[in-house]
Amino acid sequence: MQFIEKSVRENNYKGAVIGISGGIDSAVVGKLAVEALGKERVFGLLLPERDSSARTMRDSRLVVDFLGIEHKIKRISGALRAIGAYHLQPPALLIPSKIKENFVKSKWKELSDDSFLDDLMNKGNEEFLKGLAYYRSKHRIRLVALYLEAEKRNYAVLGTTNKTEKLCGFYVKWGDDSSDIEPIIHLYKTQVYTLARDLKIPRSIIDKPPTPDLVPGITDEFALGMKYSELDAILEKIERDEETTPPDSKVGRVRKILEAAKFRDTRNLSIQ
Amino acid sequence: MQFIEKSVRENNYKGAVIGISGGIDSAVVGKLAVEALGKERVFGLLLPERDSSARTMRDSRLVVDFLGIEHKIKRISGALRAIGAYHLQPPALLIPSKIKENFVKSKWKELSDDSFLDDLMNKGNEEFLKGLAYYRSKHRIRLVALYLEAEKRNYAVLGTTNKTEKLCGFYVKWGDDSSDIEPIIHLYKTQVYTLARDLKIPRSIIDKPPTPDLVPGITDEFALGMKYSELDAILEKIERDEETTPPDSKVGRVRKILEAAKFRDTRNLSIQ
Repeated sequence: MQFIEKSVRENNYKGAVIGISGGIDSAVVGKLAVEALGKERVFGLLLPERDSSARTMRDSRLVVDFLGIEHKIKRISGALRAIGAYHLQPPALLIPSKIKENFVKSKWKELSDDSFLDDLMNKGNEEFLKGLAYYRSKHRIRLVALYLEAEKRNYAVLGTTNKTEKLCGFYVKWGDDSSDIEPIIHLYKTQVYTLARDLKIPRSIIDKPPTPDLVPGITDEFALGMKYSELDAILEKIERDEETTPPDSKVGRVRKILEAAKFRDTRNLSIQ
Repeated sequence: MQFIEKSVRENNYKGAVIGISGGIDSAVVGKLAVEALGKERVFGLLLPERDSSARTMRDSRLVVDFLGIEHKIKRISGALRAIGAYHLQPPALLIPSKIKENFVKSKWKELSDDSFLDDLMNKGNEEFLKGLAYYRSKHRIRLVALYLEAEKRNYAVLGTTNKTEKLCGFYVKWGDDSSDIEPIIHLYKTQVYTLARDLKIPRSIIDKPPTPDLVPGITDEFALGMKYSELDAILEKIERDEETTPPDSKVGRVRKILEAAKFRDTRNLSIQ
């Protein structure tokens, strides 16, 4: 909170813009921003597109109501279509969402033994790569929309990446990892949950399964292949350099993820 | 060259995508990439929009012909319109380009005493801020287009930022500063010119006044308020920590620019 206020003040920003996804991270960052800056200096942007679930919109509205901030709904389907992203995946508008989700999930598993690791390492066949290009462009278009809204007001863009996502590379390079201020990047996902309860974020936002809502059916824990509670426990052990013997296959996989995430970091490679 | 080849190989990329602007930086990076990877592994993307000058397209075509690479022209006006960028500035299609350029130049000066510094510090009145949001969204949409093209092929995105631009903040945050590999970021603009001559880049590309071609009429040196030769000479002096007495107003301004550029760096602010 003090950190948000200080960052905004020292960098001459007049307020902050936040993309509201209906998830817990943006709800927590939004609430911290409202307490730091006052609700009249926080602007919420809802950025749904063709594949966004109905629940995303409902929950996003619930969050902006809870925060009491000015907000705008801006559909990004037009920009995604114009840039060519939707050409990469056929629309599936008439298929009931449950069937669509199950189809995508089995497809995701079929395309790769460990989709999450392959994603991090830019590996995979043509169809898998198309899928990566497709879903990543959504968060990148959101970045453009957030900055357009922020810069004309001289507001900062608030990021919503947490420590678990950062360490595991669970973000889109030059997408949701790119912002002016990152208020929760020092908190594991499980710590974000604790903070959410302290901040009295609505129950339904806290209780729903976290999802990037980029591809129908793919929740965070499905993509990661384990529960956040397990993942964070392993990450904390690795961070404290604790013995993780006897060797556990999950710990081994997390180490691989950490390695791959470092490899695909947000930096530009340059001659040192 | 070895650096590009090594970066591509070690990061599992199959080749590289480069945005061709018709300017000297992308011509040089393109040539280095062709020599490092072979022309069949380099893909050029031309990304004109509503305000791009006719010369930009002509020169971009000249560069891809010179490089002999596969390329595609992708107009980004549709995406910019869909995201709302063009609402910020009225179109001026029927006005002859010379008059348009002079109008924009006088406007640019009128809006601020030192537009370049104000831009870096997100200062300025509503109209000036709108202009910033407007032109910056162009490079950000280009980023989305470059990654869409690169990721479906598992190619790297090559950046074209040079050391002068990097130090002075002469780039768009999360726009042309964001890439996978930055092959010329260790070279001052004047060194890029020397390299361009060695690489036999076409004369007309080397000789034309460098411009970001984001806003009609605003060339690099107009925006910076001095010639690259002067600027680089001052930057090198500052880097070598040489005496710059007697105090010179230009040196003072460059120091201010360096300070402001550091301030508006590409990093996300976070709790340390």
